[in-house]
Amino acid sequence: MPTITVSGPKITELDTKRSLVMEITNAAVKAYKLPKDIIVVVIKENAPENVSVGGELICDKRCNK
Amino acid sequence: MPTITVSGPKITELDTKRSLVMEITNAAVKAYKLPKDIIVVVIKENAPENVSVGGELICDKRCNK
Amino acid sequence: MPTITVSGPKITELDTKRSLVMEITNAAVKAYKLPKDIIVVVIKENAPENVSVGGELICDKRCNK
Amino acid sequence: MPTITVSGPKITELDTKRSLVMEITNAAVKAYKLPKDIIVVVIKENAPENVSVGGELICDKRCNK
Amino acid sequence: MPTITVSGPKITELDTKRSLVMEITNAAVKAYKLPKDIIVVVIKENAPENVSVGGELICDKRCNK
Amino acid sequence: MPTITVSGPKITELDTKRSLVMEITNAAVKAYKLPKDIIVVVIKENAPENVSVGGELICDKRCNK
Repeated sequence: MPTITVSGPKITELDTKRSLVMEITNAAVKAYKLPKDIIVVVIKENAPENVSVGGELICDKRCNK
Repeated sequence: MPTITVSGPKITELDTKRSLVMEITNAAVKAYKLPKDIIVVVIKENAPENVSVGGELICDKRCNK
Repeated sequence: MPTITVSGPKITELDTKRSLVMEITNAAVKAYKLPKDIIVVVIKENAPENVSVGGELICDKRCNK
Repeated sequence: MPTITVSGPKITELDTKRSLVMEITNAAVKAYKLPKDIIVVVIKENAPENVSVGGELICDKRCNK
Repeated sequence: MPTITVSGPKITELDTKRSLVMEITNAAVKAYKLPKDIIVVVIKENAPENVSVGGELICDKRCNK
Repeated sequence: MPTITVSGPKITELDTKRSLVMEITNAAVKAYKLPKDIIVVVIKENAPENVSVGGELICDKRCNK
């Protein structure tokens, strides 16, 4: 039972989530040659104050631009 | 220090969480032969719009039933 | 910087991994509207004796079939 | 589809793994009131040189005792 | 692209998060000898009712003290 | 019990791991104001054929340079 975890910024549109999990599921079905029904995708949405790139929080990067 | 992460739908009753972490901790103590005090369990609760099975979001499965 | 972690059985063909990460990356680019260069995909391969479904290890399921 | 990830030191006996995943699965079935078949448990085994407690690697703790 | 995930209790001060991700990023730059810009740190904040140590939820430990 | 997971390429020198976990532990002690003894760091080393950036596996990036 492959599980794919997608960790990124918030996705506001439900349709975007629908397409994302469908496309990832299809890619996993091809790679593992396993039935679609056992592919699980979990989306994790991180607040901009909880992620840093290069040592700077995302929420600070935005403020500085 | 073994850590067990439980990722699933929301658990509304606090007593259910109490039993769940206690039983998992006991299982880990037996398996690792390590003292109970260093077993950590973390519960992660995912929203139904953030999990898909077979390419369909859980929130959509519910609507379709 | 979205990170996608794919946890599943071993993938033996390198070309299968190449397609899998490319398709997942493309799906993430569409969903996040972020440049391709910052999408990271990590494949984690689990041994059949380290995964259970329904309380039975995958390695035991195979033996029983 | 709840997924439980157990991260700890190596478990050498296959029977220990069998009991561990079975007991964790049973605990999850009770907590989530979901059928057993969709509970997934993944065991991750970490080398003693890849885990630290209190800033000291496990492999060094052993050497110092 | 190394990713460091910090899982712990809530951090209320933004400045504390700033220092934490900066210091972890600097440690990673030294260890991997990779440019700072590709080091990602993600902070995950767990509610006291979702973490147990020794089989007891953190929220219960506090109440009992 | 905060847990910090460091996911990146293989670190060959044990001394590098020692410094990395010590510095991360110190940063966590400062941020959480918790005793050092309960800070856990786990290093996960990924093979270059199991990580992609921008849709290309690390092992292919190296070959192409």
